[in-house]
Amino acid sequence: MTSLAARILSGDVRAASRLMRNVDDGVGSAVMELRTLFPHTGRAYVIGITGSPGAGKSTLTDRLVAGLRAQGKTVGVLCVDPTSPFTGGAILGDRIRMQDHATDPGVFIRSLATRGALGGLSRATGDCIHILDAMGRDVVVVETVGVGQDEIDVAQMAHTTVVMAVPGMGDDIQAIKAGILEVADVFVVNKADLDGADRTVRELRQMLELRHAVRAPAREHDARHRRARASADEGPSPEVKAPTGPREWEPPIVKAVASRDQGVKEVLAAIEQHRAFLDETGQRAVRERARAKMQFVALLRERLLREGLGRLERERGRLEEVAEAIVAHRADPYALAESLAQQLADG
Amino acid sequence: MTSLAARILSGDVRAASRLMRNVDDGVGSAVMELRTLFPHTGRAYVIGITGSPGAGKSTLTDRLVAGLRAQGKTVGVLCVDPTSPFTGGAILGDRIRMQDHATDPGVFIRSLATRGALGGLSRATGDCIHILDAMGRDVVVVETVGVGQDEIDVAQMAHTTVVMAVPGMGDDIQAIKAGILEVADVFVVNKADLDGADRTVRELRQMLELRHAVRAPAREHDARHRRARASADEGPSPEVKAPTGPREWEPPIVKAVASRDQGVKEVLAAIEQHRAFLDETGQRAVRERARAKMQFVALLRERLLREGLGRLERERGRLEEVAEAIVAHRADPYALAESLAQQLADG
Repeated sequence: MTSLAARILSGDVRAASRLMRNVDDGVGSAVMELRTLFPHTGRAYVIGITGSPGAGKSTLTDRLVAGLRAQGKTVGVLCVDPTSPFTGGAILGDRIRMQDHATDPGVFIRSLATRGALGGLSRATGDCIHILDAMGRDVVVVETVGVGQDEIDVAQMAHTTVVMAVPGMGDDIQAIKAGILEVADVFVVNKADLDGADRTVRELRQMLELRHAVRAPAREHDARHRRARASADEGPSPEVKAPTGPREWEPPIVKAVASRDQGVKEVLAAIEQHRAFLDETGQRAVRERARAKMQFVALLRERLLREGLGRLERERGRLEEVAEAIVAHRADPYALAESLAQQLADG
Repeated sequence: MTSLAARILSGDVRAASRLMRNVDDGVGSAVMELRTLFPHTGRAYVIGITGSPGAGKSTLTDRLVAGLRAQGKTVGVLCVDPTSPFTGGAILGDRIRMQDHATDPGVFIRSLATRGALGGLSRATGDCIHILDAMGRDVVVVETVGVGQDEIDVAQMAHTTVVMAVPGMGDDIQAIKAGILEVADVFVVNKADLDGADRTVRELRQMLELRHAVRAPAREHDARHRRARASADEGPSPEVKAPTGPREWEPPIVKAVASRDQGVKEVLAAIEQHRAFLDETGQRAVRERARAKMQFVALLRERLLREGLGRLERERGRLEEVAEAIVAHRADPYALAESLAQQLADG
């Protein structure tokens, strides 16, 4: 029997669907398939789309896909959508959206619904990017649903990250403040026919100027957060220095009405400019290292946790029983975690 | 020298600040302190507050704190806020908000900004809940900033989870759909003086009725997601069955204008009712087991990852170098993760 990986490499779309489902479900055998595919990855250009719910991400994604297809590029779309099952969001959404491109083999759309107690959203997203990449898709679009930290991580797996806002209420600006500003390579103010679009553009511009003044090196999360670590009980926070790096990218702010196909060409052009910038400055390699690091950490985190929980179960019983023992203070979670970690250190 | 833990148990608030900072920074020595504190945990009632940015979470939190203080309860507040450092969100926010309660030793407010490349937000939140609990706070309020999956996890560490929405644009309903509906014990439609408040209440009620019809057992994420795993290429999704459990909680929907202190008493009453429900039905123990499980998994995940990365560095070099090797296809991330996990299995 031919492996899923071999079938995927020969262009079998159903095999890709199957492997992506296994990846999403955390099926163990997927790892061998992914190892077979891995040498065939590294060519796709990855675009991340994120922003508040209601910003019109799926509409813009659909329009961008149409634009990319018109350029002759093959596209894979990942909708990272841990929507609750009873709304049927992910699955239903796939079906509806597949219909738009049902006759086009150059478009492959799948949703990821992963959200077990073990996390795994980032890992599954990373794996699925690898699959689409190995399938030979020229462009992979990763669209997130929420706007939390997981979603920001996921959006950062891209070469170019598009952050969407809509006019009104200042909500989106607040959402964007919550950690997402630094990861934006292109801003889109969607629904720009609504009142307040210009104000939203202005607010974004002001935030970018503020960022420019005190900018931390992009995508260096650890360093950034270490610098930011000054607690309320200990004087002012240490100064954040401007980077000493070379030419910097100024994220453009594009107004759009995606539902009427307005501004979509401009968004594509902005993405293309960013891609050229990454290539010219050698920053594409930097970005790809950051992505490889993030994908690997997500992979390692989940793999180690699974192994650790397996070992815990063999030694101490089921996780539910351990949790019960913790509540009753018959077990100390810190001691348990420490002892498992020690085994990894000594092993 | 007296340990931080001993000082915390004797009521030293500065020691608590210090330990919480260490926990947030992932300082290794914090683990021993947490082990000392752990036997003193388990008494605090934990309330989670989540919802879209701009929903007025911090305003409501402040009002709830005032209400709880009026009832004579001591309160600890955790603002889970991975806001970007250059906006100064977390630190500045602490300072501003501390001023409101600066003269009240019965209120202790701290922000968590943790967000390294390793994750750790859930782990740090769990640890800080333990610290506030060990300090003897009657109530711990955990307020999140975003509305992504991490935030939902964090909100679920509560006995009672309050989900906030505001009228307008349907954004919040969409945000709430994204996985947050099932974790809500109390809904608050804030800014209820705005147009559309009644419509938002109505939409929430409809969603709750839909949930009722096809409800999956609350908080059983794994099972829920397994059931929901039907991919677009494989027929309809398996049926989701109604739970066989006993009496169910109907999440009330409370209208409020927190900034004018309207509806805050009603929110407190709804939380109190939910607390009584948990006690009467024995579901408090269920909830506490779920929380212990979630906290422990977060702890184990981060602890194992740190050990695994340490081992990787000893054997293969720094993470950055490994990432570079992965990009160049000189290393296979799947094989690396597998070999580290195997050591944990064999150790």
